[in-house]
Amino acid sequence: MSDSTVYRASTTAPVNIAVIKYWGKRDTALNLPTNSSLSVTLSQKSLKTHTTASCSSSYSGPDSLLLNGEPEDIQSSKRTQACLQLLRRFRKDVEAKDSSLPKLTDMPLKLVSINNFPTAAGLASSAAGFAALVRAIANLYELPHSPTQLSLIARQGSGSACRSLMGGYVAWRAGSSKDGQDSIAEEIAPVSHWPEMRALILVVSADKKGVASTAGMQTTVETSTLFKARAEEIVPKRMALMEEAIQAKDFPKFAETTMKDSNSFHACCLDSWPPIHYLNDVSRAAMNAVETINRRAGELVAAYTFDAGPNAVIYYEEKNEKLVAGVFRYVLQAVTGWDGEYGSNIPLNDRGGLEAKTVMTLKSGVSRIICTGVGGGPEQTDEHLVDERGQAVKV
Amino acid sequence: MSDSTVYRASTTAPVNIAVIKYWGKRDTALNLPTNSSLSVTLSQKSLKTHTTASCSSSYSGPDSLLLNGEPEDIQSSKRTQACLQLLRRFRKDVEAKDSSLPKLTDMPLKLVSINNFPTAAGLASSAAGFAALVRAIANLYELPHSPTQLSLIARQGSGSACRSLMGGYVAWRAGSSKDGQDSIAEEIAPVSHWPEMRALILVVSADKKGVASTAGMQTTVETSTLFKARAEEIVPKRMALMEEAIQAKDFPKFAETTMKDSNSFHACCLDSWPPIHYLNDVSRAAMNAVETINRRAGELVAAYTFDAGPNAVIYYEEKNEKLVAGVFRYVLQAVTGWDGEYGSNIPLNDRGGLEAKTVMTLKSGVSRIICTGVGGGPEQTDEHLVDERGQAVKV
Repeated sequence: MSDSTVYRASTTAPVNIAVIKYWGKRDTALNLPTNSSLSVTLSQKSLKTHTTASCSSSYSGPDSLLLNGEPEDIQSSKRTQACLQLLRRFRKDVEAKDSSLPKLTDMPLKLVSINNFPTAAGLASSAAGFAALVRAIANLYELPHSPTQLSLIARQGSGSACRSLMGGYVAWRAGSSKDGQDSIAEEIAPVSHWPEMRALILVVSADKKGVASTAGMQTTVETSTLFKARAEEIVPKRMALMEEAIQAKDFPKFAETTMKDSNSFHACCLDSWPPIHYLNDVSRAAMNAVETINRRAGELVAAYTFDAGPNAVIYYEEKNEKLVAGVFRYVLQAVTGWDGEYGSNIPLNDRGGLEAKTVMTLKSGVSRIICTGVGGGPEQTDEHLVDERGQAVKV
Repeated sequence: MSDSTVYRASTTAPVNIAVIKYWGKRDTALNLPTNSSLSVTLSQKSLKTHTTASCSSSYSGPDSLLLNGEPEDIQSSKRTQACLQLLRRFRKDVEAKDSSLPKLTDMPLKLVSINNFPTAAGLASSAAGFAALVRAIANLYELPHSPTQLSLIARQGSGSACRSLMGGYVAWRAGSSKDGQDSIAEEIAPVSHWPEMRALILVVSADKKGVASTAGMQTTVETSTLFKARAEEIVPKRMALMEEAIQAKDFPKFAETTMKDSNSFHACCLDSWPPIHYLNDVSRAAMNAVETINRRAGELVAAYTFDAGPNAVIYYEEKNEKLVAGVFRYVLQAVTGWDGEYGSNIPLNDRGGLEAKTVMTLKSGVSRIICTGVGGGPEQTDEHLVDERGQAVKV
């Protein structure tokens, strides 16, 4: 093994969309949340970050990250530095126990990462990004740590990233300790438990970027008079309800809890000072469409949820594909994205009883569709984004 | 005095716009609120209801109400019946004490009422309407009761009507007694205390009527998990802040409390199940414009508030007319309503630093302007809408 050996490990990591929302930090440095949250991991067939971690004593200069072909300034990113430091500390323990292992901790890291998200989808990529980064380096370092142990590290990169280290249905326990050692993610049910969950994402063209979530959540924590009830009373009850719903595969209960929690989160945003708006008239048209579809079905067959932006994520079960996604496909036929494993087979339905105004607002405001479903956690891959000589591969 | 004498009394009554919102009833029959509220009475030069109450033993048939030229079915309106019954009971006491008085209680009432509101303004007229009805009949019956005593009656017609029996700045105390005897309105400061308060109403064309407020507030009371904190903790604190602000004529404090309370109310609507939306993208553009105007001024010189609909009411002090209303006049020059005592002298300002998107949304969504200011309570008038022979006057 020469000095110029290039060590490599690659992984893909998924996006997750919360059904009980993370909003508010009790510790901004450690990314400790004011309340627990719960998400569905989405299939990497539709959305993923692909990351290669490599290191070599032949590398010059400091650690680097090439993201979508552009160099990122990770030296001044406290969050990235925290992740790298903790991963090196774990590797150091491993090396200390076995002196035959190469001293990877001393070598500069070269990280190369690509998102396969549709351009301008306005989807938060930080969760998948930090999950891929942590998972790739953990693979490179051959760390024996479990995804839950690694979630402590990913959390410090981006809160919701801790939930992207696992597949299926994932809870992030807020924890109560000051150092955050109990603020971890855990898979509460694997994909195989309830694989029929589907998600339709309506990408809404926002006129401008809203308030960034880190700043927004602190405004809410500091100023919303309603937030305390949400964090302390409402969310703990909803976490329990949601876990019951998932264990029992009770979609109506899942749907009601999902929609109520999204509304509660956006209500706290509106109650912040100055108020924060993420939902717009297109978002509200999507809510209205889901309500109409549910009313026509006579039960809850669809659930909307909105993160810190106007995009609607609509969950439904595969058996109700035509009832739910089929209506959106009819209304939004002209929009890009009805393809891939999840999209191409969605049958056309009729207008689903949607009001003319709702149809018009959706048509004019939805810029693309992403069809996906529940999926697994990060996957190791031999497709490296750094070649054997340590050069970033052109993709 | 012959049997055919037609007794008449007429009044005008104002609209009021709450700065601490009434939302939620603890008793739906008696219109008892879950929390206190506080409003500014608006000038009758801009908006008023004009009502004549008349009675005569020559009238045949039951009590009747002609509203804007159309007969109203008051026999099946429990709320109107409650008001008439209570007013007759008060008159009966008066007649019992002085047998020389005509027995007006036995005579059918003929009520004629006209709103001078701009057509399709989408402004809630029930507050001014019930205040005028109660005040006109109280005048007809020569009741010795104070406006606060009469507020008990008007409240049973329409909750917020109790605040339109007084001018200036009016608090409606929620009270705690089961029979509602302590749920009354009182003037906390007359117009003369702070006459410089102005209000600019942006009438927003709604595509359809939203959830009616009576139904909406019950949905919130029954389902919003955040509402309890609002009703029990937040509003009592804000009532105290608002009364201090008004006593001290502290506009920035008045403005901040007004905006926060409007946002809190709409947050509870969004947190209801199913969620209730009154604000739309035009409402949010108005909020954004007010925020920009305040930022440019370096202090709070304008305050938005929204009732159960998308219309924005923007309060400001006369001295800041150009800073606030002048910007809206510049942006909305093409819109009707820059006239009358309050509107015609508003000087044109520039665009006020408003974003292009905000300007565009306001221009396309505001259908008319109403310029007004704080005003006095109901005014007795000799302009009767019923002639001496008991016929409704054509207007």
